Amino acid sequence: MKSLSETQIIRILTNQFSGQPGIPLDFGDDVSAIPFSSKTWIIVKTDMLVGSTDIPPGMTIEEAARKSVVATVSDFAAKGVRPQALMVSLGLPAPVKKKTVQDIARGLRQAAREYRCKMIGGDTNQADDLIIDIAGIGIANPKTLVRRNGARPGDIIAVTGLFGKTSAGLGILTSRREKDLAKYPSLVRAVRRPRARLAEGIILAKSSGATSSIDSSDGLAWSLHQIARSSKVGINLHTIPIASDVQRFAKEHRLSALDLALYGGEEYELVVTIRPEKFHHSKKRVPSLTRIGIVEKQSFGVWAHLAGKRTQVKERGWEHFS
Amino acid sequence: MKSLSETQIIRILTNQFSGQPGIPLDFGDDVSAIPFSSKTWIIVKTDMLVGSTDIPPGMTIEEAARKSVVATVSDFAAKGVRPQALMVSLGLPAPVKKKTVQDIARGLRQAAREYRCKMIGGDTNQADDLIIDIAGIGIANPKTLVRRNGARPGDIIAVTGLFGKTSAGLGILTSRREKDLAKYPSLVRAVRRPRARLAEGIILAKSSGATSSIDSSDGLAWSLHQIARSSKVGINLHTIPIASDVQRFAKEHRLSALDLALYGGEEYELVVTIRPEKFHHSKKRVPSLTRIGIVEKQSFGVWAHLAGKRTQVKERGWEHFS
Repeated sequence: MKSLSETQIIRILTNQFSGQPGIPLDFGDDVSAIPFSSKTWIIVKTDMLVGSTDIPPGMTIEEAARKSVVATVSDFAAKGVRPQALMVSLGLPAPVKKKTVQDIARGLRQAAREYRCKMIGGDTNQADDLIIDIAGIGIANPKTLVRRNGARPGDIIAVTGLFGKTSAGLGILTSRREKDLAKYPSLVRAVRRPRARLAEGIILAKSSGATSSIDSSDGLAWSLHQIARSSKVGINLHTIPIASDVQRFAKEHRLSALDLALYGGEEYELVVTIRPEKFHHSKKRVPSLTRIGIVEKQSFGVWAHLAGKRTQVKERGWEHFS
Repeated sequence: MKSLSETQIIRILTNQFSGQPGIPLDFGDDVSAIPFSSKTWIIVKTDMLVGSTDIPPGMTIEEAARKSVVATVSDFAAKGVRPQALMVSLGLPAPVKKKTVQDIARGLRQAAREYRCKMIGGDTNQADDLIIDIAGIGIANPKTLVRRNGARPGDIIAVTGLFGKTSAGLGILTSRREKDLAKYPSLVRAVRRPRARLAEGIILAKSSGATSSIDSSDGLAWSLHQIARSSKVGINLHTIPIASDVQRFAKEHRLSALDLALYGGEEYELVVTIRPEKFHHSKKRVPSLTRIGIVEKQSFGVWAHLAGKRTQVKERGWEHFS
């Protein structure tokens, strides 16, 4: 039997809850908001890590627990909001070993410290699958929160780092090829110890030049399409920043480095659009920021002009149930 | 291999996170809090429903989804706080049928309407087990929030309803005995369509007589022990309000109605301690409130004096991994 896709599932759910009054942020945005006052919104995000689908071979439970926090923090980063507190809901297959729980606790603590969040509570349950569901809670001024839908023609598209590392790293981990594991430590590390761009996201939101933002956790191509659709704009890329190890790895294995960079996932960079007159200032504050293209009118779609060739960027990325 | 118990798991996790500054509510309390100002705390609670362990035969997916919200709302009820918003994280085994998602969406919407919460967002994932993890978010004045640890000797112990229905109902559903299903609809309904005592909890918190409160979701006995331990008091019961259908069912099946009432679970009544001079006022505002005992000094433990007999109430209840 064909399964519903993640997109179809989300559509059924959002249809059921559309039309509720007093919800200030689109269901489609990276985080959710509860208005508290004109200057204050409570921001919430939940992100579930599932053992059977989200932990590749070679990743420890401690790393998986740390990563579950990184995934939630990354969505806050994209909005320029600091998550103050975290809640954790655990589903654990029985029998539960002491070491498993200790490893989870250590991974969570590590991440909470890295991003200076407090772990304030949670819930523990028996389940057939390992589940680590993280809820992040923060406070934001709605004026500085960067939405998905603010990109305007003429804005610069920029990203905070290089792409392709996690899809290459995931390939290495799942193939368990010893040689590659030793040869490409940076690619493996990108999967096992990802980082959220929280500091960068907060700076970009404060600099007031960012018009839209999303993280690249479902892949660069997917993220670009989300910005294009939410903002009703087109996107024209003139470069894709690919990590040099990804280039090497792709060449060795006859893969397309471009595909690895565009259609990966679990890569927690930020994809932002910035007003052109503010880009220089933003780049000075966030040195990792790289200009990759320009926002165009809606009819355009998402295209890349690379080495004199015009390539369509497909709306494809990391999707569950696919 | 023997599994860690839920209590042991929680201990490992809380040990890892104890000593964080600025956490105003005990890890052991029903909800978690983030201080926002002297008069405002953000209140958060997550509660995970797991398909393989939390959905008895005869309960529909729609009912399970509704119940997952009730469980979270019930913890807010115990603290006297209205949950304003809900987030849902789903884990769904593939292949995912349209009807499953529609049923989940309907169950969630129903509960959100009953308790006037807004569903503001969520996350969808593929998993080996059905997971419905609900996060509730609300705002509370720390002065009116009723903690677990405020019971004082002399306070009256009261509950909001009758007990034993869900453990009897669960027995009926798991045995699938057709005759009982027809004969005891109220017991089956208690499992399939539980209600959280949100209105009652908010009134009790506002009446300023409530000194401690907890819901009975892990069983009446367990809840009484939690209040006794957190508040460092003893508890002396003079009655256990048992539903008449539970009495009938217990008699017919030669079970102890008292055990069904004390050691059940998933029963979302409130267990509160109230200053004696305020009880009359509280009872007038919340007619379902029933006095079941009195708070004593710590050395006492939890006992019941029923029909001239002194019975120890054991610290036993609903625990995962047991």
